Amino acid sequence: MLGISNFYLNLSRRFVSTGRNLVKIEQNEESKFMTRILMNNEKKRNSLGIDMIRQLQQAIDEIDLEKCRVLVIGSSCLKVFSAGHNLKELTSDKGFDSHQVIFDEFTKLCLKLRDLPCPTIAEVHGLAAAAGYQLAASCDLIIASNKASFSTPGVKFGVFCSTPGVALSRNVSPKISLKMLFTGDAISADEAYLHGIVSQVVNVDESSENLSKKVKEIASKIESNSKHVVALGKKCFYEQFERPNLNDAYKIACNAMVDNLKYEDTQLGLKAFASKSKPIWNHSDKKII
Amino acid sequence: MLGISNFYLNLSRRFVSTGRNLVKIEQNEESKFMTRILMNNEKKRNSLGIDMIRQLQQAIDEIDLEKCRVLVIGSSCLKVFSAGHNLKELTSDKGFDSHQVIFDEFTKLCLKLRDLPCPTIAEVHGLAAAAGYQLAASCDLIIASNKASFSTPGVKFGVFCSTPGVALSRNVSPKISLKMLFTGDAISADEAYLHGIVSQVVNVDESSENLSKKVKEIASKIESNSKHVVALGKKCFYEQFERPNLNDAYKIACNAMVDNLKYEDTQLGLKAFASKSKPIWNHSDKKII
Amino acid sequence: MLGISNFYLNLSRRFVSTGRNLVKIEQNEESKFMTRILMNNEKKRNSLGIDMIRQLQQAIDEIDLEKCRVLVIGSSCLKVFSAGHNLKELTSDKGFDSHQVIFDEFTKLCLKLRDLPCPTIAEVHGLAAAAGYQLAASCDLIIASNKASFSTPGVKFGVFCSTPGVALSRNVSPKISLKMLFTGDAISADEAYLHGIVSQVVNVDESSENLSKKVKEIASKIESNSKHVVALGKKCFYEQFERPNLNDAYKIACNAMVDNLKYEDTQLGLKAFASKSKPIWNHSDKKII
Repeated sequence: MLGISNFYLNLSRRFVSTGRNLVKIEQNEESKFMTRILMNNEKKRNSLGIDMIRQLQQAIDEIDLEKCRVLVIGSSCLKVFSAGHNLKELTSDKGFDSHQVIFDEFTKLCLKLRDLPCPTIAEVHGLAAAAGYQLAASCDLIIASNKASFSTPGVKFGVFCSTPGVALSRNVSPKISLKMLFTGDAISADEAYLHGIVSQVVNVDESSENLSKKVKEIASKIESNSKHVVALGKKCFYEQFERPNLNDAYKIACNAMVDNLKYEDTQLGLKAFASKSKPIWNHSDKKII
Repeated sequence: MLGISNFYLNLSRRFVSTGRNLVKIEQNEESKFMTRILMNNEKKRNSLGIDMIRQLQQAIDEIDLEKCRVLVIGSSCLKVFSAGHNLKELTSDKGFDSHQVIFDEFTKLCLKLRDLPCPTIAEVHGLAAAAGYQLAASCDLIIASNKASFSTPGVKFGVFCSTPGVALSRNVSPKISLKMLFTGDAISADEAYLHGIVSQVVNVDESSENLSKKVKEIASKIESNSKHVVALGKKCFYEQFERPNLNDAYKIACNAMVDNLKYEDTQLGLKAFASKSKPIWNHSDKKII
Repeated sequence: MLGISNFYLNLSRRFVSTGRNLVKIEQNEESKFMTRILMNNEKKRNSLGIDMIRQLQQAIDEIDLEKCRVLVIGSSCLKVFSAGHNLKELTSDKGFDSHQVIFDEFTKLCLKLRDLPCPTIAEVHGLAAAAGYQLAASCDLIIASNKASFSTPGVKFGVFCSTPGVALSRNVSPKISLKMLFTGDAISADEAYLHGIVSQVVNVDESSENLSKKVKEIASKIESNSKHVVALGKKCFYEQFERPNLNDAYKIACNAMVDNLKYEDTQLGLKAFASKSKPIWNHSDKKII
């Protein structure tokens, strides 16, 4: 905890306006284009109860998209990113209609992250289990500490991780997914990287600050690119990814390329490239024609 | 051979009722919920001739699904899991209609494994080649010894491994698949793990028993979960995996989650979790509503 | 440069008949069934301007498919495979219609490589960036030196690598793809192999000839197989790969298998296998029925 706290000592912090403060929003002053949403319920291991889900949705909806170029989803404690759904909400006495609401709302949250124009990074220091993994996997990148672990253990107490399995199976082969899903065994961050489940592993043996530093470094790289170009690219990526037909996928991507070239920022970038200077973006969606 | 034989010394064994005994069924007494089907034709390297295919189908059909919670597909010899189709059955004098039957029946066998309610594990000690690899890949997990190897060598004698390529391409990138398919070169178990072709590699340098021990250990973990919850999860996994559209996949999985929560066993599991005790399952498909 | 030059010292070389010589075609005398098309514009880092694209298309169209069994796409210089599109052609003053032509023609080139009956190998010694990576990924295999690197850096100067992203996302998990696409950072050949982006990495620390030697060795293996069997297998692979439904994919592949067995060459191969001799192919598409 201390490491991350110190690192963000000078951050202006505001809270989603609820009495519960399950979610903390950090607007980094150094990097004003990065928004960090931290799950802040260590006691309940950041369990994704309906309140946490709704507060995360709300926090995302409140992001100033004019300004924000990278969204980081993390945890305010080191031990756990999130342990998944709140199992107390899944008992039969709560009613199956309320279960449906929970899974529908959580799916909305996951798709909301995918559909955000800005790239999203899950910063995973500790355990990301079940829906906790699914939340991380719904971000574009996962940057994990070497102490992180990933699991889909629901089957052990009778709730198969079917929805986390959707995210898992889009990132790793069925042979790896199904071993995790059937046994509930966790895998280490290094194994997760080996299998393409995470984007990068950061060694935090010496200092717990390393992970946030690396995330900030990656975010800075992304922020230094033209905002609307990145948004166009992200949208195209997920659109073509759903097309098994290669020709269809290329049609979508070719249209995106041609559209991309119409941005004023893109033409600025090409001029900068030609003159070997650094592009100074407008970050506007203004098009030349 | 001896290692595995000793390890299963006390097993009750029965045979599929044919004169040929191409397939051996072992019902482990220690682990009464695990069924092992062993290909038992070392002389012909467990070639998947039509008789072997039919005996495997029959053996699977005869599984007591009331009891069985994990099916292991293995070989009664260490050197070879299976070398693939019986090439003698693929000559033109056998008639092309009979070729069609062979591939149709083998596809049925592969889909039968996928559609079984219980998880399936391929235990691969030696060579899994061509249709032999396809059979292994049609199991949910592949647990391989470090001495195992995997190949799709059909092209070398004029029969491109098109059907094994279907299984291969669902587990590993085209760049790796096509190198295997075009050259026929085998890859080691470690490489196979690196690429997500196998779920786990077990070091058997010291003892040939290690592989079966590890498979049994994984099977025990799976068996300790509620049978119908596992079946529901397995079915959902493969259903959503065929949906490239993420929203569609999540709809399928959300429905599975809500359905999952209706199992009596699931509610038992949630109560056990809340009281930090170990769930004692009914293994029934009884639902609360 | 010298290494590769020496290695191909005795090659007969001819050039695509244009005044610009952006593309060099090498017909290896030792291996008369392998055609090498080398991008030959070191000064412009083999940029894929419309002329280069058209010369590559033309070079492929001119391949003697009666003879050619493997096509290698490479570079005549060691430092760069290709740095991607010619950014000077993407400025607004060239007109957006001409941009559309560039992306359409480049897509045609990529699909042409996939649709060629013979296997294609990208031999990547240096940098493969943006459309340069896409070109390499459009070959069936990528064999890379340990000095190679791969990147999709377009976003840095305002042109998101949307079309290269199509190729990338078909070979590696979104978590890895999106990190490359959003940051523009290059990955090493070893990382690329780890993630399934390349088929094999060849250590060239001691000699720059190693890569071409290894490519030739792999090509020789492929050439020693029956040409039309390989073509049938390649076609089937990409066809079934576009089918998310496993049953559909197996239907396509079963039909391919049965069709495969009708080739005279296949029946020769099966006879050779039975008599433990090496098959001597006709390399014809003659069928028995």
